Order: sequence, then C-alpha cells, then structure tokens
Amino acid sequence: MDKIIFNPIGVIHTPYTDRKNMPIQGRFGNDSVIGSCTVLETFADGLKDLDGFSHAILLYYFHESVDTKILDKPFLEPVTHGIFAIRSPNRPNKIGLSIVKIVQIRENRLYFTDVDMLDKTPLLDIKPYVEYFDSRDNVKSGWVDKHFTDGNIPDATILK
Amino acid sequence: MDKIIFNPIGVIHTPYTDRKNMPIQGRFGNDSVIGSCTVLETFADGLKDLDGFSHAILLYYFHESVDTKILDKPFLEPVTHGIFAIRSPNRPNKIGLSIVKIVQIRENRLYFTDVDMLDKTPLLDIKPYVEYFDSRDNVKSGWVDKHFTDGNIPDATILK
Repeated sequence: MDKIIFNPIGVIHTPYTDRKNMPIQGRFGNDSVIGSCTVLETFADGLKDLDGFSHAILLYYFHESVDTKILDKPFLEPVTHGIFAIRSPNRPNKIGLSIVKIVQIRENRLYFTDVDMLDKTPLLDIKPYVEYFDSRDNVKSGWVDKHFTDGNIPDATILK
Repeated sequence: MDKIIFNPIGVIHTPYTDRKNMPIQGRFGNDSVIGSCTVLETFADGLKDLDGFSHAILLYYFHESVDTKILDKPFLEPVTHGIFAIRSPNRPNKIGLSIVKIVQIRENRLYFTDVDMLDKTPLLDIKPYVEYFDSRDNVKSGWVDKHFTDGNIPDATILK
C-alpha cells in the first residue's frame, strides 16, 4: 500500500513541555489549564462556525514518540495489551486523538480545556464533536472498566 | 513544518463501492451491514484484548477525496461552513474518523457494524473507544443541532 503524506495544518501549544503532571486523557486534567492550537493563516477560514460547538476533536502527531510497539503497557496498569487496544503513543502510525472543550476562537487560534498533549505538537486536523455522530450508549471499555468502578478516578490518570 | 508520512496498517472492506446508500455517519446505517478491517499480518498481535471493548475508533484515509476546501457544504444542509466545523472528506489532511461497533475479531481481521466508509479505504489506526475518555456531557453541536430536534433523523443522513 502506498504511503500517505500529510502536512500539519498548524501547531498545538500547551503548558506541558514534558509529560510530568500531564493527564493521560483530557478529562482527567485541571479545568484551569488552557491549551491552544494555531492553524496556518491559509486555513483560518476553516474555523468558521466551529464556535457553535462545545467540543472539538483534535487529531495530531505524537512527535515525541520514538518507539513503535505491537504490544505495550498502558499508563493505567502494568499489563501488556495489543497496541490497538490501548491509547499509547507508541503506535505504528503515531496519530493522537483528543476531545477538547472549546473556550474561544480568535482569528486562526482555538483555545481549549481538557488538555492532554505536549507543547509544540503538530496539528493534523480539527473536527467538530457532534453528539448525534460521536456519542455511544451501552459501552464496554474492556480492560479499562475495572479501574473506574463506582466513579473511581485512578491516580495513574496523571503522569508522574 | 515538516511533512508527516504514514504507512497504512491495513485496509477496510465494506459493501459500499460508491457513496450511494452509504450513511454519512455510522450511527445512521443499517445494523445488518457488516464491514471489516484487515491489518497487516505483522500487526495482528496489536488487536489483542480489543475484543473486550464494545466499540473502536477507526482512523483512515479518505482515498476518494480529490478536493481540498477551506469552506464547504456538509451533507446535511446547503450552507457553507468552515471545513473544521464539518465532517466533509474534502479536508486539508484527509483523515476520516468512525466509531464502529465491534462484532468479532478473528486473527488479523476486525468485523464491525456502524459502517460509513467506502470499500478499500486505507486504514491508519485503530483505538479502543473508552467511555471514561471519549464520552462527553452537555454537548452543543452547533449548526447540526437544529437537524436532530425531538429525535428527528434527517433523510440526508443516507447518501443518494
């Protein structure tokens, strides 16, 4: 199969210059932490009407991931799973996905909370999060479920 | 910014050889329609433990999209919005995202429902859909909301 080439549409800025204190997923972070993504000027009009949505899906490149594993341990437990059954950055194609909460949009810049990515992350795409497309009922979350019983939020959701 | 190169991890097979009768999003399709994705043999172990999850997120390449637009009309209405406020395939980086329902996994093949992609779509990544990471409350879905009031499912959710 042919290789596929993407050019970043912009860059993500966050307070996390390394993984320390970064949440493993945006929902587990502190609401006072604001990130932003700046799209290239040529794409600024592409943000039109995104401000009507409460959330956006960011797709980006895990630029600090140097390993590629087929089996890996997730942040939540010291147990090996298939790379497609965990959210580790050490994937064959290092595409990250975060659902962020939109704070505001100014010109070519989107400000958001639910920040879980490193500063200077190359941005590949922004999609609107649409309730009618993206929410699911009766979800089973496999090996993850046992860590969140009775509303528990494990300490391991924040990186040390 | 440097370009980013991905190699497909496999391919998606669906009954949709063209867009006719294809749902615009998997939730609007017929539950009897089954799709599958085959990952390269070398990545087969990466599927380990994914069968414990009810849903997976597929990321793929919109291989039939030839246009790139900054403003575009979505399938749901003849109104122009920013490309990052709609889910059109005519995006700067043609990455598609579908949340599919896992039916079964056999060796290097994942069978699923909620099919909304064309046959022979190059597969870039599979991630487990995790309720605690990926569901959101109090969602506002911008220009989309008005089409789905009172449980309405518009005819335009199936392509003609």
